[in-house]
Amino acid sequence: MHSSTELQEIIEKAIPQIEYPTHPANLYEPIRYIMSLGGKRIRPVMVLMATELFTTEVNKAIDVALAIETFHNFTLVHDDIMDNAPLRRGRQTVHEKWGNNNAILSGDVMMVESNKHLSKVDINVLKPVLDTFNATAQGVCEGQQLDMEFEQRSDVSIPEYLEMIRLKTAVLLGGAMKLGAIVGGASSADAELLYNFGENLGVAFQLQDDILDVYGNPEKFGKQVGGDIIANKKTFLHLKTLSLAHENEKESLISTTDNKIDKINAVKQLYDKYKIKELAALEMNKYLTKANFALDSLAVADEKKANFRELVQQILDREK
Amino acid sequence: MHSSTELQEIIEKAIPQIEYPTHPANLYEPIRYIMSLGGKRIRPVMVLMATELFTTEVNKAIDVALAIETFHNFTLVHDDIMDNAPLRRGRQTVHEKWGNNNAILSGDVMMVESNKHLSKVDINVLKPVLDTFNATAQGVCEGQQLDMEFEQRSDVSIPEYLEMIRLKTAVLLGGAMKLGAIVGGASSADAELLYNFGENLGVAFQLQDDILDVYGNPEKFGKQVGGDIIANKKTFLHLKTLSLAHENEKESLISTTDNKIDKINAVKQLYDKYKIKELAALEMNKYLTKANFALDSLAVADEKKANFRELVQQILDREK
Repeated sequence: MHSSTELQEIIEKAIPQIEYPTHPANLYEPIRYIMSLGGKRIRPVMVLMATELFTTEVNKAIDVALAIETFHNFTLVHDDIMDNAPLRRGRQTVHEKWGNNNAILSGDVMMVESNKHLSKVDINVLKPVLDTFNATAQGVCEGQQLDMEFEQRSDVSIPEYLEMIRLKTAVLLGGAMKLGAIVGGASSADAELLYNFGENLGVAFQLQDDILDVYGNPEKFGKQVGGDIIANKKTFLHLKTLSLAHENEKESLISTTDNKIDKINAVKQLYDKYKIKELAALEMNKYLTKANFALDSLAVADEKKANFRELVQQILDREK
Repeated sequence: MHSSTELQEIIEKAIPQIEYPTHPANLYEPIRYIMSLGGKRIRPVMVLMATELFTTEVNKAIDVALAIETFHNFTLVHDDIMDNAPLRRGRQTVHEKWGNNNAILSGDVMMVESNKHLSKVDINVLKPVLDTFNATAQGVCEGQQLDMEFEQRSDVSIPEYLEMIRLKTAVLLGGAMKLGAIVGGASSADAELLYNFGENLGVAFQLQDDILDVYGNPEKFGKQVGGDIIANKKTFLHLKTLSLAHENEKESLISTTDNKIDKINAVKQLYDKYKIKELAALEMNKYLTKANFALDSLAVADEKKANFRELVQQILDREK
């Protein structure tokens, strides 16, 4: 069994070895670019981790891991167009560098490339792999659609928000886990438990992200603390406060202002009053509990689950 | 064996029965919309036609036919964004009706829907079906990229143009034929011959389109005659003339003018001088000859090939 760091190295070595056509250069150069920008490769690592629960032949899962990473990067390319984002991992986004049309089309080819990777898996698991991947991809698109629609709405409920982050973020983690399990030869029951583990972990991770955006250590968080507050982003904290606050208190949540510090302080005061940080942490823990339950139920020797316990711990440690 | 009209009816009946999720409505409504706009359904009909050469069970190929039609419509949705096109089949384009972001995302989901259709084929042919579909999809994206790049270039050669239309248009017809053949149980050799038939037919069709844009009967052609000339579009006729004309003659090809009739007449005069219509027809016939050769080589009783001969004849008849 490899450590998660070793698995990440396997992915980092495999990505530059993917052979894309050279022509038309402007179609494939953006793919090499976005795939090389790095990140923690958490999704493909999850695929490999899940595979290693059931087989020592981790190489069996490389193609699926690359399919998941390619698909994830495809969603980044298209989401960045939709969000009009200038930067991704501190570098120019694909549409900034090559233009929107080129970014649409390179993204489209990335979807094809994902499917090419997938089609290389053992024929015995090809059908369940495709079914799982397609359901996952569809969920992620639905999540992005809901996210865009929520920006235009003022009546988003907390269950709706949780469903959106489940689709946009968590389904892909669940799908990565399940795909790895299938390729590793897991039973359907175990594959489903790993899906549950990944999905619940994903929701917990996003809720933690919402918390850290307000309460995180600026040096460790890597984003501007308070960014969600300034953007009036409909996070769990924002929506929970809207559901608890008096009418006259809601103004500070939805107002736009040039004085960012005043705005952040006003909203944080409101969060403190209604113990929003604690409520968000409670909600996050509900999902971590579900993830742990799925992990405990898995018919695999406990010592093999170390990598997975570590994933849960990493989320909890982010809080500090 | 069904006639091509009967096969089209099978497709027209199958499309409204595709079950898309209902939520988020704005993600799936554009898919139902574009899929219902009609057209001749030539690509899915080709799938079914190819299948019927090898089996009486045409239903075996319905899922692949729907995958091809969904993929084709996905390319229309994304191409229309890139081309900034207001209308498609006389109706508002998806991005005009729902906005660019929604159109990008609905298109993305259509790619997933195509793959969902594909994954339903018999497991015995799943792998070759995926390989053929993915190669086809990739080719179509490459063709669209080249088409966009050619708009910005003044040095496009005729071989480059032929390669672009091969990828953008013809590969999908070849792929449809080959997929139908595979699902029908054809030998690899026959599947490859049908690919060649479809691809060569596709190039011939596009060359005929270039000719008809200038010389077509306005009542039958369905588009504005001379549209390519006014847009200085780099068609076969345009590029061939550029390669033959004197320097001082080229101005009328690339000039922009408000007087459309004068422009069309000037360019047509040049086309007449260099017998461009005849040269384009010669080129088209080269591809039709190749298509016929592939058809003749096919190890299938000649009476079964009637639908295919009809396709070739339809292209020739368009000229009149």
